[in-house]
Amino acid sequence: MEITVSKFDLLKELTATQGVVERKTTIPILSNFLFEAVGDKLNITATDLDLSLRTACVTKVKKEGSCTIPARKLYDYVKLLPDGDITIKLLENHWVNIRSGRSNTKMVGMARSNFPSLPVFPTTGMVKIPAAALRTMIGKTIFAISNEESRYTLNGALMVLKPESLIMVSTDGHRLAHIERQGGKFEISGEMKTLVPKKAMSELYSLLQSTETEDIEFAKDESTLFFRIGGRLLTSRQLTGQFPNYEAVLPKDNDKSVTIRTDEFMAAILRVAQFADERSQAIKVRLEKDELRISSSSTETGESEDSIVTAYTGEVVTIGFNSQYLIEFLKAAGADEVRLEFKNAQSAGQLRPEATSDEFKYRYVVMPMRI
Amino acid sequence: MEITVSKFDLLKELTATQGVVERKTTIPILSNFLFEAVGDKLNITATDLDLSLRTACVTKVKKEGSCTIPARKLYDYVKLLPDGDITIKLLENHWVNIRSGRSNTKMVGMARSNFPSLPVFPTTGMVKIPAAALRTMIGKTIFAISNEESRYTLNGALMVLKPESLIMVSTDGHRLAHIERQGGKFEISGEMKTLVPKKAMSELYSLLQSTETEDIEFAKDESTLFFRIGGRLLTSRQLTGQFPNYEAVLPKDNDKSVTIRTDEFMAAILRVAQFADERSQAIKVRLEKDELRISSSSTETGESEDSIVTAYTGEVVTIGFNSQYLIEFLKAAGADEVRLEFKNAQSAGQLRPEATSDEFKYRYVVMPMRI
Repeated sequence: MEITVSKFDLLKELTATQGVVERKTTIPILSNFLFEAVGDKLNITATDLDLSLRTACVTKVKKEGSCTIPARKLYDYVKLLPDGDITIKLLENHWVNIRSGRSNTKMVGMARSNFPSLPVFPTTGMVKIPAAALRTMIGKTIFAISNEESRYTLNGALMVLKPESLIMVSTDGHRLAHIERQGGKFEISGEMKTLVPKKAMSELYSLLQSTETEDIEFAKDESTLFFRIGGRLLTSRQLTGQFPNYEAVLPKDNDKSVTIRTDEFMAAILRVAQFADERSQAIKVRLEKDELRISSSSTETGESEDSIVTAYTGEVVTIGFNSQYLIEFLKAAGADEVRLEFKNAQSAGQLRPEATSDEFKYRYVVMPMRI
Repeated sequence: MEITVSKFDLLKELTATQGVVERKTTIPILSNFLFEAVGDKLNITATDLDLSLRTACVTKVKKEGSCTIPARKLYDYVKLLPDGDITIKLLENHWVNIRSGRSNTKMVGMARSNFPSLPVFPTTGMVKIPAAALRTMIGKTIFAISNEESRYTLNGALMVLKPESLIMVSTDGHRLAHIERQGGKFEISGEMKTLVPKKAMSELYSLLQSTETEDIEFAKDESTLFFRIGGRLLTSRQLTGQFPNYEAVLPKDNDKSVTIRTDEFMAAILRVAQFADERSQAIKVRLEKDELRISSSSTETGESEDSIVTAYTGEVVTIGFNSQYLIEFLKAAGADEVRLEFKNAQSAGQLRPEATSDEFKYRYVVMPMRI
């Protein structure tokens, strides 16, 4: 294999793949890129076995072929090279020569045959999904995915495709984020439910941020999910199992509500949370006439209270919440005002951005804490 | 004690003191500020016993007195408060009340009597030092101070005051940074040598960056160093012991030299250092006719070479250096070009910025490595 590629083009693709490469792996080949030079293209592949990303850049191919190169080392080195052309050439014993200007380096690669084989995009059942909408929906749900490995089916978000809508839901058992997009036409019959692992969501989110592609192509086979974003293909092992019946959790009789400025609410929670119990992060939210009071106390640090003026005329209610759960929602809400809908101290509260979008219906359910 | 202070003024002083407060200390009082309200001023003191900082801000004092407050917690909380006035009031049992707008917090303080007493600025022997010059000199020597606790006298820089010059020297036994400022008039007889601990250098550097004071006031007694920077007083335990005879180390017969563009030299070293042995960080610098070659190799990652065109006509010489030592100097050099002066592979190399300043004479000596 021997190719010449511009630093700019190569670095762009190497940057896109960094998230997929495992830093610490017991399987050495997984910390390598697979480079394949074919026609006028260099195909670059990274995988951690669960997740893989294949991308490509235009290249002058002097000799077709393939090699593997330590991914992190190559990325760090290419970043430091001056702008210009880089020549990459496979040498004996899997060594790879990288030349650019007055810089000349040989890196220790591994045999191409060690690199795992990768799943192939299915020939049928592809669905197009608008890239911008998908990015928004990931941004508003990914933070509520559980990090507890024991709660296997909660380690991803549920994506529900219907002929005329798209839903994304995530929960960790203590809070739930739910977003629905009305409109669009998806070529499917009935509904298609998919559990997308958190790491795939996160990679997809960053790939969607750096693309100008209007629609991505989504498909799946029995074990694997495929997302094609322009010239890049992300594949992910599918999460299997039963996602909780989230519709049963959505509050239906939260008859009291209050509207609050997002920035004021966030600032007050951030201050008060400084004095919340470190483990529980619990704060009290108390609704009184035309006032919302937030308070916390911990034996170690002290106690804190903040209040916000807001129109409210209902009965006095005090509910305990995990302050971090509220902050994460307020960061994602993307609206000047949010509405808190609640019933009593024992029932889940629901938060929504105050109508900013006709496209999305976004809601966030938080379980109350005993306080 | 009861005072009202503007958030802006208070936060400025709290920020300046953060470096002195110990995050992890077995002596709880050291993670607290001492607040003392006297006249129209709030005096703020932080100490880790070795280092202390006393600062002040203008305040409306309703009731004079003093209290202690958890330093980190207070800083985090004040940062989150909106702009405006903050009222701080001592309550029963060392609790402290902090009020601002609609925010109201009580923090758990400690008895003022627990706070250590602090050294007092000596009444005689004060020397004025130009603030800008001192800042420059710290920036060009601090990185070469040893981090090995066992090498006690190398854990600080030597500051030598003479009637008409100021010298600062640091070394870790493998490299040495030396800067001399000619001119100025210091009111001392003979010379005054002081070992300034690294943490004091670092605090002093950041205090000097945020001051408009022209001269700082320096004094010392038997155990303590005093630096008064405007309204702030930094004190530090003095390092005692014999600093190495650095003058014997300064190379005198480095008869070969080469001039290199700083950015080119740095970029080449950074690239090649990626493939240096991780522990030794060793690279080879080889002078040939009109060329400087830098190379490295490690059994794990591969080998790398870079070359720079430069006027050189002397004999071919190859010297091994720790790449990190060179990079640190090049970052601090502050010149477009540097000169490398050397003799042979067994002798220390010397680096200097190419004449950019008449005020300072800066040199950096690096021991060679066997390669």
